[in-house]
Parts: sequence; structure tokens; C-alpha cells
Amino acid sequence: MNAIPSQESERIELPFVRNLWYVAGWASEFSGAGPFGRIIVNEPIAFYRKKDGELVALADRCAHRWAPLSYGRVEGDDLRCMYHGARFARDGRCVEVPGQERIPPILRVRTFPTVEKHRFVWIWLGDPERVDARLIPDLGMLDQPERRIYFASLDYDAHYSLITDNLLDLSHLAFLHEKTAGRQVVPMQEPSNTCYMPGGSEAKSLERGVRVESWVSGPAARNVALPKNVPDGDLWTRTDFVVPGIFISQDRMYPYGTAERFKGLAPDADSAPLSDSMSIQAVTPLTARKTRYFYSFGPRASDLEQEEADAMWAIANETFAEDLRMIQAQQNIIDAYPGPRMGGIAADRGLVLFRSLMKKLAAGERPPPGLKEMAVGAP
Amino acid sequence: MNAIPSQESERIELPFVRNLWYVAGWASEFSGAGPFGRIIVNEPIAFYRKKDGELVALADRCAHRWAPLSYGRVEGDDLRCMYHGARFARDGRCVEVPGQERIPPILRVRTFPTVEKHRFVWIWLGDPERVDARLIPDLGMLDQPERRIYFASLDYDAHYSLITDNLLDLSHLAFLHEKTAGRQVVPMQEPSNTCYMPGGSEAKSLERGVRVESWVSGPAARNVALPKNVPDGDLWTRTDFVVPGIFISQDRMYPYGTAERFKGLAPDADSAPLSDSMSIQAVTPLTARKTRYFYSFGPRASDLEQEEADAMWAIANETFAEDLRMIQAQQNIIDAYPGPRMGGIAADRGLVLFRSLMKKLAAGERPPPGLKEMAVGAP
Amino acid sequence: MNAIPSQESERIELPFVRNLWYVAGWASEFSGAGPFGRIIVNEPIAFYRKKDGELVALADRCAHRWAPLSYGRVEGDDLRCMYHGARFARDGRCVEVPGQERIPPILRVRTFPTVEKHRFVWIWLGDPERVDARLIPDLGMLDQPERRIYFASLDYDAHYSLITDNLLDLSHLAFLHEKTAGRQVVPMQEPSNTCYMPGGSEAKSLERGVRVESWVSGPAARNVALPKNVPDGDLWTRTDFVVPGIFISQDRMYPYGTAERFKGLAPDADSAPLSDSMSIQAVTPLTARKTRYFYSFGPRASDLEQEEADAMWAIANETFAEDLRMIQAQQNIIDAYPGPRMGGIAADRGLVLFRSLMKKLAAGERPPPGLKEMAVGAP
Repeated sequence: MNAIPSQESERIELPFVRNLWYVAGWASEFSGAGPFGRIIVNEPIAFYRKKDGELVALADRCAHRWAPLSYGRVEGDDLRCMYHGARFARDGRCVEVPGQERIPPILRVRTFPTVEKHRFVWIWLGDPERVDARLIPDLGMLDQPERRIYFASLDYDAHYSLITDNLLDLSHLAFLHEKTAGRQVVPMQEPSNTCYMPGGSEAKSLERGVRVESWVSGPAARNVALPKNVPDGDLWTRTDFVVPGIFISQDRMYPYGTAERFKGLAPDADSAPLSDSMSIQAVTPLTARKTRYFYSFGPRASDLEQEEADAMWAIANETFAEDLRMIQAQQNIIDAYPGPRMGGIAADRGLVLFRSLMKKLAAGERPPPGLKEMAVGAP
Repeated sequence: MNAIPSQESERIELPFVRNLWYVAGWASEFSGAGPFGRIIVNEPIAFYRKKDGELVALADRCAHRWAPLSYGRVEGDDLRCMYHGARFARDGRCVEVPGQERIPPILRVRTFPTVEKHRFVWIWLGDPERVDARLIPDLGMLDQPERRIYFASLDYDAHYSLITDNLLDLSHLAFLHEKTAGRQVVPMQEPSNTCYMPGGSEAKSLERGVRVESWVSGPAARNVALPKNVPDGDLWTRTDFVVPGIFISQDRMYPYGTAERFKGLAPDADSAPLSDSMSIQAVTPLTARKTRYFYSFGPRASDLEQEEADAMWAIANETFAEDLRMIQAQQNIIDAYPGPRMGGIAADRGLVLFRSLMKKLAAGERPPPGLKEMAVGAP
Repeated sequence: MNAIPSQESERIELPFVRNLWYVAGWASEFSGAGPFGRIIVNEPIAFYRKKDGELVALADRCAHRWAPLSYGRVEGDDLRCMYHGARFARDGRCVEVPGQERIPPILRVRTFPTVEKHRFVWIWLGDPERVDARLIPDLGMLDQPERRIYFASLDYDAHYSLITDNLLDLSHLAFLHEKTAGRQVVPMQEPSNTCYMPGGSEAKSLERGVRVESWVSGPAARNVALPKNVPDGDLWTRTDFVVPGIFISQDRMYPYGTAERFKGLAPDADSAPLSDSMSIQAVTPLTARKTRYFYSFGPRASDLEQEEADAMWAIANETFAEDLRMIQAQQNIIDAYPGPRMGGIAADRGLVLFRSLMKKLAAGERPPPGLKEMAVGAP
């Protein structure tokens, strides 16, 4: 617990990794034909839907004079630029220039693979040859009909790595959120015979992320994410954080004795929890200082009344506003007052593991095809 | 029509040419003695009127401690800085320093030639030895008493060359303005035995600009700029676009057969049109990302009722707001997502000709005297 | 009077000198325990009060992950970061990391000496070995119970040296403030047998500043800072401006003949003035383009009614708004239109002396310990 994971100087800003699926938005944002303009990892994207509903993603920059295609008009399966009328097909080729027969091959825009899954729209910005839909993490909890699903998003004026840091060191719950989500968190000073989630040393590496698991017993286990009519017991919590910034958290209350029965390990699927709540969140860089944060809350409908769930969602929104205010202030300080290095503490273990993983992924990327040869607007 | 005028890589931003007359504003903006502060082609200018009404233009930077002279006070034929009281004469010399007898020669500001003509104030920012009032284009239509003249201006957050591009490729009318000015424009796909203005290949070089002329016949000729009570006929249109960014457009409806009588060439002055409308516009760079756009509309008063003209002016304003929104979005994309080159189409012919002319003018300029030896604030 | 003090090219922006006391704020801004976040001379500072009331100043950047300590919580004599809970003592050492026993020595923030004196909070940003509370100027007039003290502050978007320039050349009163504070100022052209404050040649060097003194007689002496019920007489004025930007101004009216009796020199302390008014002001750089300006007005309570004093304070506020508008415009011109050099006039003598003093102080500083070895956030 008291080992210092890293006191090495570290770069504060993680790189942008391209060969990954990014959350482009909640699928519900893309209702109708579009077009829908978004910036994702510095790429301007125009999304639109073909007649069969397929979601197409084109570079949001007409190949003619760089007007935004997201200001355009969907015509059949194509997207027409509404500045001078160039029309682009689903594959990025220009198929019509008004008043002109021959269409020069330069009139082409880049396309990006998209997938709609788990209520999200995902986009692949990297090497087209490496696209693999299996790399989308399993967020099946978002699809479970037994849950009430609340979801929203908010925008940060901050680099994405400050937000992933935040989600990887939940020791901040007891301080930043002492009056909201963290208000009933176990004091970290209090000795406990069960390991408690925010402790940094528990963070373990996953192939594509970091996992923290814990059991906590008794009244201390109650936090705001648990409905009041659920009796006290043994709380099992698992938080996975996977690349590029997907946070998957489960909270399950079991009868007293369950933790002991499983020897501090994860309960098996057959053991019925008294209550079951989850939160899935996603961090998508827009630019170097703009990041979109998607968050959700999914308690089991049978665990609590609608009003209780609504109240808990209201507290979650307050909580995320506290993060926003603190992280933007942190970004301002980082930008205005450069210094030699941050000081490491034990609770940083999760973020150190994750940062190391992201840097490894970045190092393994060939120079991204989107930046030089395949620049937006050219094939 | 289908020749591709240029697929060469081209710089998007045209240079600032100094040895030209720029529109500083509508003359009506300069009512009273002033002073009036303006930025024009990166030069801060303080305008004021002498007792005889002459409009003087001084560098808007007091030679003492660089306070703006446009915050000053006109006293007789002079302009006094209202920070510490230095007083400057019409020729830029400081003629009074309060409490001090000897005035050091460094206390001098640069002056700029101005002309009031055709309802505009013009300013010359270049080499004083090359000033030539004959280079002001003939905008006499603005002075014709038989017209109702409407005029206004708006400011772009964009480089001026995106706006001149817009005015040089009117193929955008059918798309960007499909619901406003362009709503009755002839579909470009429709074959026609008369040439129609938006076609790129018609653009011809003038000594100091680019001309597009066309005849269109019948109902297809009607666009929003034509009053409803004017009968159908042959519409003659001429658009001249001259340096640095003056747009001169005429629309005249003639009885059927006129186009044929003139063999597709311009009608002579003796042929009385059924209706006669014009629009004169001017593009003035303020800075690299601020541009002021002046526009007017001048139908013949006898062609339509006041209410009709007012309604057409309202549509014109909507139209220009559509341009503003699109061009600012285009500028944002250009700035945020640099790419290799734009793709040329046939309709670009006019802007290619004009861009070539501006680059030639820029290349022919000696290093501008205002930038080094004659810096603002020093003689 | 007509000698030109300097026509040499000069850098417009004075350096930031660190081995000086800066006004951090009016003491009344620091009521309660805090914390209070401020930026002073590019340093982010978190102020808080210990239980005994002592005001502590720490670098406003947690040594852990650079969250602002000014978003934290005062606990006893310590300040706890409310992001992840690191707790810092008055000496800048981290004394608690939640859930961790050993505290790495890197977890330390810089501290800054503070003094509360003359209604101000002062801070020393420079070499800790050179701290000397005697360098705080004597502003005892702010503590005199016989005065009504009005005070306020406002923020400039400008470099501090443009504001100190302003305060060092009061010839601007007659122009910039002709309708407010300066409205009854003696015309500078008018010959007078007494020397008058705004004259530049009167400025004299002090060891740590510049002094201007004058006697003016009769009705011409009346300016807005004098209550109406005080009879005319001989007005004695002294303005001291001391590093880094403290303005200390006294206005005293005496019976006719007093100026002559003292041969144009300062009156002695035994001579009772008919009225006695003062203004103390302070200029504190926040960043290179943000400056906080503190100002006060302190007439003797017995000289005027409350309403009269209130009205004079209202005019003072108008006056300072005039300065703000002009100086920010001046800053905009300086930034946008660089030029070779400003033109000197006689009235600049005070600011030339002060600039020379500041440059001498800057040159005498060793590389400031706060910038390299002792960077914020590191010990």
C-alpha cells in the first residue's frame, strides 16, 4: 500500500493513439439522416445515415474548397456539399460536380469505419487495415433490460489524460466528492480487514486496461450509489478502465458472509446480489484541450423506485460537475505554470499502469496514415 | 465548360496588396468631425474631418506613447491625442505638446490619402508616389438618382480571399442560397441555348479584374432580384469583379428577342430594359482573420413598389448571412485541419483568374513603405 | 521644462522585479480562514489563515498532481488539497497523504513571506534570504483615524508598466480626465509663479522611487479632490511613486502666503492645513497582460460632509475607468502594431526616472530562485 509506484518525471499529456475505437457519441445523438458534425481526436467528421440506416463517417471537409460537409444535405445514400454542390458517395468519392462532366480524382474525402453497439457510436480513426470490431469493449450492461439506464455527456476544456487520471485514482472520491458521490465512502485511514477499492496498490493490469476490485463489509460499504432499502452486507466492486478511456464499474451488495465465502475474490455469476448497479463512462478527446465525457448510471430497476433512481442520477450529475471544475482548474495551472514534475503517491498506481499501456500502444503505431499520406480531404 | 482550370497546389490566402484603393467605409459612417477609428489591411487609422469637410486619415497611434488618436478630439483642422494632449496637424506633424516649446521631429504620424466617391470612403495604404485616383473603379450606378439604394456592411471572422472566392464563383447560388437569392436560379444541369452566368468557363480577364456576362431567356431567367411585375423576357447579366475586391453586378430584363438581336453580346445603351437592377459590393481586409463586407442593392425605383424593394432587400440580407455562416465554418476548417491542396473544378475559373491577378500585383510591389521605413507612428 | 529627457529607443515593457514587496490585496479581501487564490507576478498563490490568524501563502499547485490548493480546505494550521487529499503544513511540507504512511519529500510546495500592514496584504516573491519588512513603504496615512478611507480595485488587460507610466505622468489629467478628476486643473500653458505638479521637469529621484512636489495658488489650485467649503489658498501637493508601483499622493490647502513662507518647499508638520486629502494606489502585475490596480481616497473627515466625500469618490471611480479604457486601447495598439520607438516629451521625465530605477533593480537580481531551482510545486 505504501510503495511509491513512480517518482520518475513523466509527461503529463498522453499521446493520441489512433488504432483504437473511440466513442463518437450516444447513438441517440444520431437520429435521422443527418448530417452530424463532430470533432474526434482532431479529425472533423461528418456523419450521415444511408437510406438503410447505415451510419457513414466522412472527413468533414469538402474536397473542393474545404467547406464543412456537415453543413450539407443527405441525398439518397450520398452527402452533398451545400456550398457549391459537390456530391460524395459512401466511399468518399465525389460522384457529381454540378455543371461538369469529368470529375477529377482529387475530389475525394476520407472515410472512417463506424459501429453502433451498446448504445454508442464508435469510430476507427487509424489504419484501415487494422480495423477489428472485436476491439470494442464489452459494455453489455448498457443493453440489459432489467436496468434503468440514465446517460448524458459533458465537455471539458482539458486534455483527455487529466480525465483518465481522474477515473483511475478513485481516492479522490473521499475529497473532491465528499458531499456528493463520496459522502459515505470509508475513511481511508480506517483499518479494514477487507481491501477497499480506492487503495492504489490493488490496481492490476489487464491486457487493454487496468482493473480494481474490492470487498467492503458493513455500513461503511454504503455509498450514494446504493439504494436505501437494500440491507447492509458485503459490497463487491469492480472497476475496469480500458483503452482509450472506457470506464466500466459494477457495484453489487451481497448478504454478510459472501466476501468470506469467495475468499475475497470475485463472486460467481450464480450468486444473486441483493442489489446491482453499474456505471459506464467514456472519455473521447476532441482536440488537445477539448474532451467529451460520456457517462451513464444503470441501477437494477427492481432495486429501487423511480424517484430514488432519479435522485441518485441528480447526485451523479453534481459529482461530474465537481470533477469538471477541478480538472479544468488543474489544466489551467499545468498550462500556465510549467514545473519539473509531479509527485507520485501510492494511489497513482492505476494511472501509472494505464499511462504506461497507452504509451506502449502509441509507440507501436506506424506514423498514422491520417496525418500525412491520407490527410483529410485527399484519398 | 469541363476543362479543369487548375489542380495545382495553391496557397489559400492571397497576399495583402497595398498599392490599391480600399473601401474604408460607407461615406455616411463618417458624418461629423470624428475622429473615427478603423483598422484597414492591418493599419489602424484615425479619420477626422477638417473644418472644410476634408476627410483626413492619420495612423491611429499617437507618436508619443501610442495611445489611439481615434480616442482623441478634433480641434480646428487638427487632431489632439486625449491621453497627454499632443496635437497633430493634417500632414501628420505634431504641432503642440502641452507645456513644452520645442517639439521633437519624431513626434509625427503617417498620413494616408483618402477620396470620397460613389458613396464610399476610399483609402490608399501603399506607396504615396503611386497614388492615382483614376484607379478607383467606376461605381457610378450608386449615384444614379433613378435607383433606390439600400446598403449595409457586416464583419467576417475570415481571411478576405475566402470572400472574394465566394463572389467569383456564383455556382454557389444554387446550393448555399437555394432558399434565398438562388431559389429561382436556373438548374445548371439544364441545357440552355444561352450561356448562363454561373458557368465557370465564361469568366474573362479584365485588366484589373474578371468579367462574367450572360443572357438567359424566359421564366428560367427570373430570380429573386427581379420584381414580379416585370414581364418575362431576355435577362442580361454582367458581373465585374475588380481589385482589391469590388463586385459590380447588373441585371437587366429586355423584351424577348433582344438577346438574339445582340448575338449574345452586351446590349447597347440605347436599348431600354424592362427592368434594371444592380448590386455593388466591396471586400476590405481588416486583419488576417477579420474582413469587412460592404454590400448594396439598387433596383430602378420605377420598376417596383417600395414594399417590393424592401422585401427583396430583406432576402439579400438573409443571403449574406448564409455566406457568412458558411465561409466562417470554411475558415475554421482551413485553420484547424491543414491539408495538401484543394480540388479544382471548372466553376473555379473566375477565382483562379482573379487570384493570379492579385499575386501578380503583389509581386510587382516594392517592399511596402509602411512596413519598414515608414512604420506607423514614425515619419 | 523643455529639455527632452530621452529619445532613445526603449523597451516598452519593464521587467518583473521579484525582490520587492507586492500588494496581494486589500486585507479585507482575506477575511476568514480561506483559502484565497490569487495570481501575483505570474505566481499562483493560495493564501489561508492559521488558527492564530497568521496569513500563510503557499504555491497554489498541489505537489501531487497540480490541482489548485486554493480549491482546498483549511484544517487547523494546514491546507488540504481537495482533489486527492494531500495535506500541507504552513512550511510547505506535505504532512499527510491519505492511505499512505511514508511521504516522499518531493511532496512539498513553495511558501512565500507575507505581511499585513496599512490595510494591505503584502507578499515577497523573491529570494527568501533578502526578505526585509522595512522595504514596505510607509502608507501610514491609510491608518489615520481622522480620515474617511474609501478603497477599491480593478483589473486591467494590460502590462503593468503602462499603468505605472500613467501614474508617473500626471500631465494626462488635463486631457484624459478633463471632465472628471482633471476638470479644474490649471492649464499647463498658463504661466504661473509657482511650480505645478504635472510639469515633468519637477520629478526628482528618490532612493526607491520618484517624487513630484508643487505649490499652486488661488482659484486655479482647486481641483475636484478639494471640498467646496474649503476656502481658496495655497495648495501643496506631493506625489511619491515607489517601487514596484505604489502611488502616494497628498493634497493640502493652506492659507494664502504659506507657499511664500516656505519658499516653495514642503510645509513643516506644525503648519495646520485648511484641508488635507490623500490617495494611495498600488499596481500589482498578475501576468504579462493582467494587472490589478488598487486605489483609495482619504479626505480628512472634518473637511467635508459624508455626501461630499461620497460624490468625490464616485468621480474618482469614473476617473479610473477613463484610465482603464485608454490604457487597454494603448496596449492593444502596442501589441498589434509594433513600431520602432515611442517619442519622448518633457513630461515623461518621471516615468523615465522610474523605468531606469526598475531596470537597475532587475539587473541586480540574481536569476530568481522561483523560476528555476525553486519552481512552484518543488521545494
